[in-house]
Amino acid sequence: MQNDYILQPNVDLDGLTRSVKGYDQNDVACEINVVEEQPLTIFLNGQEIVTAMTIGDYPDYLALGFLKNQGMLGADENVLGIDYDEDLKIVVVRTDGQTIYEEKLKKKTRTSGCAVGTVFGDMMEGLENLVLPSAELRTSWLYHLSNVINQTPSLYLKAGAIHGTVLCDKDKPLVYMEDVGRHNAVDKIAGWIHMHNETVADKILYTTGRLTSEMVIKCALMGIPILVSRSGFTAWGVEIANQVGLTLIGRMRGQRFMCLAGKDRLIYDEK
Amino acid sequence: MQNDYILQPNVDLDGLTRSVKGYDQNDVACEINVVEEQPLTIFLNGQEIVTAMTIGDYPDYLALGFLKNQGMLGADENVLGIDYDEDLKIVVVRTDGQTIYEEKLKKKTRTSGCAVGTVFGDMMEGLENLVLPSAELRTSWLYHLSNVINQTPSLYLKAGAIHGTVLCDKDKPLVYMEDVGRHNAVDKIAGWIHMHNETVADKILYTTGRLTSEMVIKCALMGIPILVSRSGFTAWGVEIANQVGLTLIGRMRGQRFMCLAGKDRLIYDEK
Repeated sequence: MQNDYILQPNVDLDGLTRSVKGYDQNDVACEINVVEEQPLTIFLNGQEIVTAMTIGDYPDYLALGFLKNQGMLGADENVLGIDYDEDLKIVVVRTDGQTIYEEKLKKKTRTSGCAVGTVFGDMMEGLENLVLPSAELRTSWLYHLSNVINQTPSLYLKAGAIHGTVLCDKDKPLVYMEDVGRHNAVDKIAGWIHMHNETVADKILYTTGRLTSEMVIKCALMGIPILVSRSGFTAWGVEIANQVGLTLIGRMRGQRFMCLAGKDRLIYDEK
Repeated sequence: MQNDYILQPNVDLDGLTRSVKGYDQNDVACEINVVEEQPLTIFLNGQEIVTAMTIGDYPDYLALGFLKNQGMLGADENVLGIDYDEDLKIVVVRTDGQTIYEEKLKKKTRTSGCAVGTVFGDMMEGLENLVLPSAELRTSWLYHLSNVINQTPSLYLKAGAIHGTVLCDKDKPLVYMEDVGRHNAVDKIAGWIHMHNETVADKILYTTGRLTSEMVIKCALMGIPILVSRSGFTAWGVEIANQVGLTLIGRMRGQRFMCLAGKDRLIYDEK
């Protein structure tokens, strides 16, 4: 299938999957591919920020996108460089400015702190006055995107147990990232966007993960007006999408979907 | 179907799902059920610990299980009471002892802090000398469990976009918890276990979520020797399961599964 990807999953790259031996239901020895999962510690200048579990590709995009999405890197700060130490599993984002991470870290200690925790207090910041751009979403694009993405060779098809996120332009998937954590995949997309100064006002974000409050907030703060998922919704995700005027499409399978917010952008050109 | 549940999803309880209006692929207005998602802030005595996103049922089990699973409540500490304020969405676990949360919170600030973060440093603690009990797992139990659990009325069947975890005894599912966060569902099981002083050495933990390192570590630290999932594996999850001697069954669908660790407990009585 012809496609216009700028970046797509590199299924043959060493170190992203591993063949593991086991036994099936008939006691027959077999080997299956499983995805890797390793800690990556993100630093902002001299400050350790977080240790994330990741498959390990694109540590630079992940670190940059994570810091941007957490509001730890302002628009006025220049990123001088990003250094990745593969042995230590450390990535350092270097800037020229004074960062506000100390203030942010203080908040985190209070509102978060673990795998189930969320940066609730932080995440809702910036939503109040947010106005998402007007944009167009044609049903024909949705069907084409879903078709192309599902058939793209991926770690998901190779090994399973992984989430994918794709930045799309109309009916074209552009950048397809995967990770064991669904938020990592989105953060890697955000990192790519910032590194390449890509315009997002007319883009679509496609994710395999559920449309929870955190995912909706993240997409809105990135400035992308349309969020599509093959998975389902949570009530609060829908509520926030309505609040900020984000177009929310879920349960996208073949030529079926549900639109629960921002229907004004939707054009039914193919039914 | 006859079953032996002590606790199972309460699909008719107000406030766990909501009917939301939207439009489908044919521009036809429709209503679907979506799960609720709300913040719950957990306190240990006077100390705020974390804000988790949850569907909101069993805040007491969630809080107790979370604190136990995070190592913030020692075995020697008596829980005097658990108070839940529904309006403020706050749950307070009260103990009579000096807790070690201050030390733990300090660690968290360094190693974690957000939705994608993990308490890596904390979580690996206690695994070194762990010996999981010998136990038995019959394939007939697996097939029966899978069948009963999949047919149990659940929020998943009603609204989707939710994870489930079930504590099982041989071929009987006992306690079935669901939550928007898969770790919350496990924590609620842990809370139930501690509240009822349930023996776990002969139990099986079934989850709909992926068998990542965090899930394997959590199950092992809870002392449950067998972990089963309908989802897939990560390489590190398999590695840790092998290290601590946990039986790891994944891709469990109908009468098919893969065992990637701890096969010694498995008895093929039904093929």
